[in-house]
Amino acid sequence: MQVLYVFAHPEPRSLNGALKDHAIDHLRRAGHAVDVSDLYAMDWKARLDAADSTGPAAGRFDPAQASKLAYENGWQSADIAAEQDKLRRADAVIFQFPLWWFSMPAIMKGWFERVYAYGFAYGVGEHSDQRWGDRYGEGNLAGKRAMLIVTTGGWESHYSARGINGPIDDVLFPIQHGMLHYPGFDVLPPFLLYRAGRMDEARFAAERAALDQRLDTLFTATPIPFRRQNGGDYDIPALTLRDAIAPGAHGFAAHVADPAADVAT
Amino acid sequence: MQVLYVFAHPEPRSLNGALKDHAIDHLRRAGHAVDVSDLYAMDWKARLDAADSTGPAAGRFDPAQASKLAYENGWQSADIAAEQDKLRRADAVIFQFPLWWFSMPAIMKGWFERVYAYGFAYGVGEHSDQRWGDRYGEGNLAGKRAMLIVTTGGWESHYSARGINGPIDDVLFPIQHGMLHYPGFDVLPPFLLYRAGRMDEARFAAERAALDQRLDTLFTATPIPFRRQNGGDYDIPALTLRDAIAPGAHGFAAHVADPAADVAT
Repeated sequence: MQVLYVFAHPEPRSLNGALKDHAIDHLRRAGHAVDVSDLYAMDWKARLDAADSTGPAAGRFDPAQASKLAYENGWQSADIAAEQDKLRRADAVIFQFPLWWFSMPAIMKGWFERVYAYGFAYGVGEHSDQRWGDRYGEGNLAGKRAMLIVTTGGWESHYSARGINGPIDDVLFPIQHGMLHYPGFDVLPPFLLYRAGRMDEARFAAERAALDQRLDTLFTATPIPFRRQNGGDYDIPALTLRDAIAPGAHGFAAHVADPAADVAT
Repeated sequence: MQVLYVFAHPEPRSLNGALKDHAIDHLRRAGHAVDVSDLYAMDWKARLDAADSTGPAAGRFDPAQASKLAYENGWQSADIAAEQDKLRRADAVIFQFPLWWFSMPAIMKGWFERVYAYGFAYGVGEHSDQRWGDRYGEGNLAGKRAMLIVTTGGWESHYSARGINGPIDDVLFPIQHGMLHYPGFDVLPPFLLYRAGRMDEARFAAERAALDQRLDTLFTATPIPFRRQNGGDYDIPALTLRDAIAPGAHGFAAHVADPAADVAT
């Protein structure tokens, strides 16, 4: 299968760099073809701006409108179009990064902002009172899988249900649901490596083995059952959960289907 | 009072630009001194990398270690040190941005990554089995106030308790709690402007008036009661809520003190 590996860490000789090299090697040995977008090594342009389009300059820069025009007319800058091509041919995409201030590094955030063009990753499908586009489980990236590989300096307990940083599933929800499920990806549970600053050879060998297992099941593991926007669970256009769906539940977790409850509804 | 206004939008002639100009003007008319960090206009460097230190090059770039050394030895690049000076003299800081992919624009994420140096915004205070640093309500920015001004394309219902994007308080928690409360800020409730793409003059006038009211109470409004890490609510070093605190509660909301429950505990 075809895998795209998007990586953001400034130092190749880091734990993240070693983990990335190991993962790519493992995927290739398993017979997969791997495209690598090593954002720091590529000197990826982090900021979205008017220079992202080679088309005629508008008077006033509207990010969504400029993205739409550039995507429709072939005016996108070459680096953006190249990443979209990698996404189109990928069967699965892996995003690896250290958790900096509870999100991805700025350089990777800028990858999403620029590569996720209007018409490609958002603004897809019919927008009306009956349908708010093809998103959250539908869209141009539907049928592809995505998985995060994330390292943290903090301990696992700090990211537990009552941990001070918030549960890791909630910390990652804006990424896994808002950036991956949104344009259609099936999102696998993340591979998490806590307390990355305290790593010895024995532990790193164990972590590599655990990662290998996750890579070996990249195309068979069960995705997180995020609800589909147009699957009947939401009122449109309010886009709130219908009363009958997970009654009384609120917050991020309500958007993950409970297989037991699904039988009842 | 002294206010720092950090702004991220690529187009001055946008709704965000107009809102920013209005807010700064209003603050100055009220007698405040305002520093403005208009990140696109400043051509702010978004990515954190080894060039952020003017000190001797290490063989292998460790972001936290390099930041620590640069901060301690005066090796920080001038743009970083200048922003830290603005933070030091500020009584309140406002961060205004459009919500792009459920977080701040990459250019502002890079402001936090680079300006929030080790020893300045993290790695502050004693780290031991008894104390995990001065953070979450303590730290070098304690005593200062912070407030987000955020615009979204989506509707308010999409960000409601059962809305498809997740509740806005949860979407913003990694920023308000993880990036602002963490180094010590008292965080005010955000000023939110939904459906920013549908704005006419009448509505914009009403939004400006609502914002004026928030700016007029910048130094008097009650902050979000995020729990202090070292205030007795957490077990250290696990950093999980003590059993007696908000028993049974989990997730982001558990880290906001409930005034009613506080009386009981």
